[in-house]
Amino acid sequence: MSATDITIYLMTATDITKIVSMGRWEPDARGRLRVAALELFAERGYEQTTVADIAQRAGVTERTFFRHFSDKREVLFEGSEALQEAVLASIAAAPHGRSPLEVMATAMESASALIAAQPAGYPRIRATVVAANPSLQERELLKLANLAIAAADALQRRGVPAVTAQIAAQSGVTVFSTGFERWVEPGQTDDFPTCMRAALAELRALTA
Amino acid sequence: MSATDITIYLMTATDITKIVSMGRWEPDARGRLRVAALELFAERGYEQTTVADIAQRAGVTERTFFRHFSDKREVLFEGSEALQEAVLASIAAAPHGRSPLEVMATAMESASALIAAQPAGYPRIRATVVAANPSLQERELLKLANLAIAAADALQRRGVPAVTAQIAAQSGVTVFSTGFERWVEPGQTDDFPTCMRAALAELRALTA
Repeated sequence: MSATDITIYLMTATDITKIVSMGRWEPDARGRLRVAALELFAERGYEQTTVADIAQRAGVTERTFFRHFSDKREVLFEGSEALQEAVLASIAAAPHGRSPLEVMATAMESASALIAAQPAGYPRIRATVVAANPSLQERELLKLANLAIAAADALQRRGVPAVTAQIAAQSGVTVFSTGFERWVEPGQTDDFPTCMRAALAELRALTA
Repeated sequence: MSATDITIYLMTATDITKIVSMGRWEPDARGRLRVAALELFAERGYEQTTVADIAQRAGVTERTFFRHFSDKREVLFEGSEALQEAVLASIAAAPHGRSPLEVMATAMESASALIAAQPAGYPRIRATVVAANPSLQERELLKLANLAIAAADALQRRGVPAVTAQIAAQSGVTVFSTGFERWVEPGQTDDFPTCMRAALAELRALTA
C-alpha cells in the first residue's frame, strides 16, 4: 500500500465479517464505537461517514461518542499515545552498552506488540482506510514524525549525540513502518515482529 | 527545529532584511509573490496572512496570484515536483553496480543542489514557517513520504528487491532531512551537501 495509491477502497464481505467479529473483543461503548467507525469508513469511505452514523451503528448517542473521542479522525489514532509511551519507556529501560540502533529496534518491537494485540483484522483494515485518504495519511505521518523526534530526545538523554540519535530514531521508525506495510499485505503469513526483523536486516545489509 | 516545537516564530529585523534582499533574485511576478508570501508568513504567521495580503505586498492583483498558485500553501511547496524529478532522474541515471544506498545518496545530493540554489535566507525562513504550523508540517511530511515511495519505485526498476528499495529510499530521505535540519540551524557554517554527508556517515556508523 503506498501513499500514491489514493483510491476509495470498498471492503469485501469477508473483510466486513472480520471487523464485525471484533465486536466480541471490546464490548463496551468505546469498543463498539471503534468497530462501528472502522466498519463504516471501510464500507462507505471516511469522508462519507458522519459521527451520527457511527453513534447509530454502535447503538449509542452522539453525546456518548464525544465523551470518548474529540472527532471521527481521533477514533483511528487513539492508540498512538500509548504506542509512543511504550517506545519511550523501552528506550529509557534499555541496558547500557547497547548501540542506539539496537535500543531502537527493541523499542519498536515493544510498539509492534501493542499493534499485534489488536483483533486480527483491525490493523490491515485501518491501514486501508488511512491509505485511501490524504488527510489521514498526513496525520499518520505527523504521528510517526513526532514519535521519531521523541525517540531521538530519549536517546539523547542516554548520551547519544544529537545527529546519531536522530538518524537512529528515524531508522527505527522506518524499520517499523516498512515491517508494518509488509505485515498487512494480503497473503502475508509472517507475524509483525518477524516482518520488522526482516526490515532491520535489510537496513543493516544496506549500509554494510 | 522539531515538530513538537510548535510556536509562532516572529522574525527579527535581520531575517526580514534577508528575505527582502531576495527581491533581486526573481524580479518577475511569480518571484515577487514568493518573497511577499514568505515575508508575510514570517512576520504575521501563516494563518494570519491572506492571499489578498500577499498580492498587495507583491504589487499584483489576486487574479495574478491565482494564475501562479492554487492557494497560499502552494507557494511554499512549488519546488517539490522539480525536486522529485531531480531525484528520480538521478536514480535512473546511476551507473550499474552502485549499491542502493549509494544511488540514493547521489540522488539526494542532486536534490540538495536545487535547494542550495535558492537565495541564502529562503530555506531557513521557510523551514521556520513550516515548523510553526501543523498543517504545513503534515503537508511537508506527505511530500517527503511520496518522494520516498517514488524513489523506492525507481530503485525497483533498477532491479532492487522491494523491501531493500523501500528501506534504501526512506534512509536516503532521512539523510536528506537530517542534513537539512542541521544546515538550517542558526550558526551553521557547513553547506547543505556537507551536512548531508555527515548524516550519511552517521547512518553507516549506526549499522556497522
